[in-house]
Amino acid sequence: MSRLSVPVPLRWADLDAYGHVNNVEVLRLLEEARIAAFWRHPEAEGGSAPTAVLDAGPSASTHTVVARTEIEYLRPLAYHREPVEVEMWIGHLGGASIDVCYRVLAGPGRELHVQAVSTLVVVDAATGSPRRIAPEERAAWEPYVEAPVELRRPRR
Amino acid sequence: MSRLSVPVPLRWADLDAYGHVNNVEVLRLLEEARIAAFWRHPEAEGGSAPTAVLDAGPSASTHTVVARTEIEYLRPLAYHREPVEVEMWIGHLGGASIDVCYRVLAGPGRELHVQAVSTLVVVDAATGSPRRIAPEERAAWEPYVEAPVELRRPRR
Amino acid sequence: MSRLSVPVPLRWADLDAYGHVNNVEVLRLLEEARIAAFWRHPEAEGGSAPTAVLDAGPSASTHTVVARTEIEYLRPLAYHREPVEVEMWIGHLGGASIDVCYRVLAGPGRELHVQAVSTLVVVDAATGSPRRIAPEERAAWEPYVEAPVELRRPRR
Amino acid sequence: MSRLSVPVPLRWADLDAYGHVNNVEVLRLLEEARIAAFWRHPEAEGGSAPTAVLDAGPSASTHTVVARTEIEYLRPLAYHREPVEVEMWIGHLGGASIDVCYRVLAGPGRELHVQAVSTLVVVDAATGSPRRIAPEERAAWEPYVEAPVELRRPRR
Repeated sequence: MSRLSVPVPLRWADLDAYGHVNNVEVLRLLEEARIAAFWRHPEAEGGSAPTAVLDAGPSASTHTVVARTEIEYLRPLAYHREPVEVEMWIGHLGGASIDVCYRVLAGPGRELHVQAVSTLVVVDAATGSPRRIAPEERAAWEPYVEAPVELRRPRR
Repeated sequence: MSRLSVPVPLRWADLDAYGHVNNVEVLRLLEEARIAAFWRHPEAEGGSAPTAVLDAGPSASTHTVVARTEIEYLRPLAYHREPVEVEMWIGHLGGASIDVCYRVLAGPGRELHVQAVSTLVVVDAATGSPRRIAPEERAAWEPYVEAPVELRRPRR
Repeated sequence: MSRLSVPVPLRWADLDAYGHVNNVEVLRLLEEARIAAFWRHPEAEGGSAPTAVLDAGPSASTHTVVARTEIEYLRPLAYHREPVEVEMWIGHLGGASIDVCYRVLAGPGRELHVQAVSTLVVVDAATGSPRRIAPEERAAWEPYVEAPVELRRPRR
Repeated sequence: MSRLSVPVPLRWADLDAYGHVNNVEVLRLLEEARIAAFWRHPEAEGGSAPTAVLDAGPSASTHTVVARTEIEYLRPLAYHREPVEVEMWIGHLGGASIDVCYRVLAGPGRELHVQAVSTLVVVDAATGSPRRIAPEERAAWEPYVEAPVELRRPRR
């Protein structure tokens, strides 16, 4: 039962005309964190490849497709030279899908700025159809399973 | 009771290395549709300004801040020269917040590709604090209120 | 001897924290204009495909690779709901490369905002090596050859 | 006479449908490097602020505006988990403008992938007009002045 924690550098270009990191770019930060933590990219020379691989790039036999994302913006995210920290864990490990949960911490006090969850579907790259998660995949991911993120907003 | 329907042109740069419109860029399309439909930008010369204004740009006295988004990707979105169509309506008109609902239709058969809902909070630009929606704002937005979008995914 | 003229819609997200279309995003506008004018994308259903094709997408046997760009920003580009207009022509048709020239017109007076030139190299997709432009390609592109854009800045 | 060298992390989203870092995104990497090296951002808490400041953000009294960029792409840039390295120096220190030169090194052999030069004009933020570089600015920037980057492409 452990979480992955990935530093994700901001870019100045993430700011929009309001001078804050744009809400769409926040989703980009989550994508970059997920790729850093769970994705083995064959062309990514150097660095430390992840052990619990969700996706191995366009040429792999399995892809993971984002089917759903729910994201809460708890406070505005300013530009910082220091990377934000993205905590990630698996909130649900289903038959053919995985819920990845995220918490974004930023600023000198490492305050919680964003919470989110994405459902990824495991897809056969040749057919584009979902496929069952294999036992060895399940074994690799199970150490990262925890209770799902508790989103705050009312669900209407 | 009416929906707004906005054509949003894709960019080739919306594609990622998998050759589909990236899931984060889909959120960008929703942002652009929302701005086209509900936003009066003082510098936007020409074109037809919206009548039900949610935001009037960085220098206005009121801002709308995205507090939450939930989005479902029902099928992969390919690059098209023709714009996608984004339907929008207000699924909930609260005391200080608005839920904007979206449906993205694309392709020759105008198939449903994406459904989403964003909660926007009305904020006093000077203080950054939420403020009550004024009666005249409520009157301008009420024609666009409908039942919320019915998301398909199970909520865990 | 003719120019192609392509309307390119701005996105609000093209603005940076200074409230102008970011200079990097201007290059994106040129890319989108070039793709609209010169690129046949097999997945781009609908719309009018170009006749003088420079590139037919990742799966084609020939790619065009940007080898060099020179761009001048003559005045700040504000957000407009109306598309900017990008004029394009071929300023040089070499043995294995093409110079595409651009002029970006925007605003109510259609004022010149940006001038640029990109050198594209024609590459065999399988080997990644440049190849000679074929006579039938040359014939398709020659109607768009004109004198190169006259850049204003001093070259140091 | 020294160069600044800044590591700039790639994002997976910098890849386009051809699976390489998109040529427009390369310009984004240069922008991020320039901001890291030469820009004091008042909201950028933490990290080490630069000593030779070209710009201090939207609220400062002086802005620097990109007036021209020339960029050469010498080889395709693949995705790497390791940051690319951007070398920067000042190739020309004029009366009201500065040429910033760049070299992008990447990959295990730190091979040269990109060379570029941007002309930045120093502008009075209130009027938007260029202004003379002050003696104290000149003194801060002179240590970074070197011969301009030698671009390889023929100039037609």
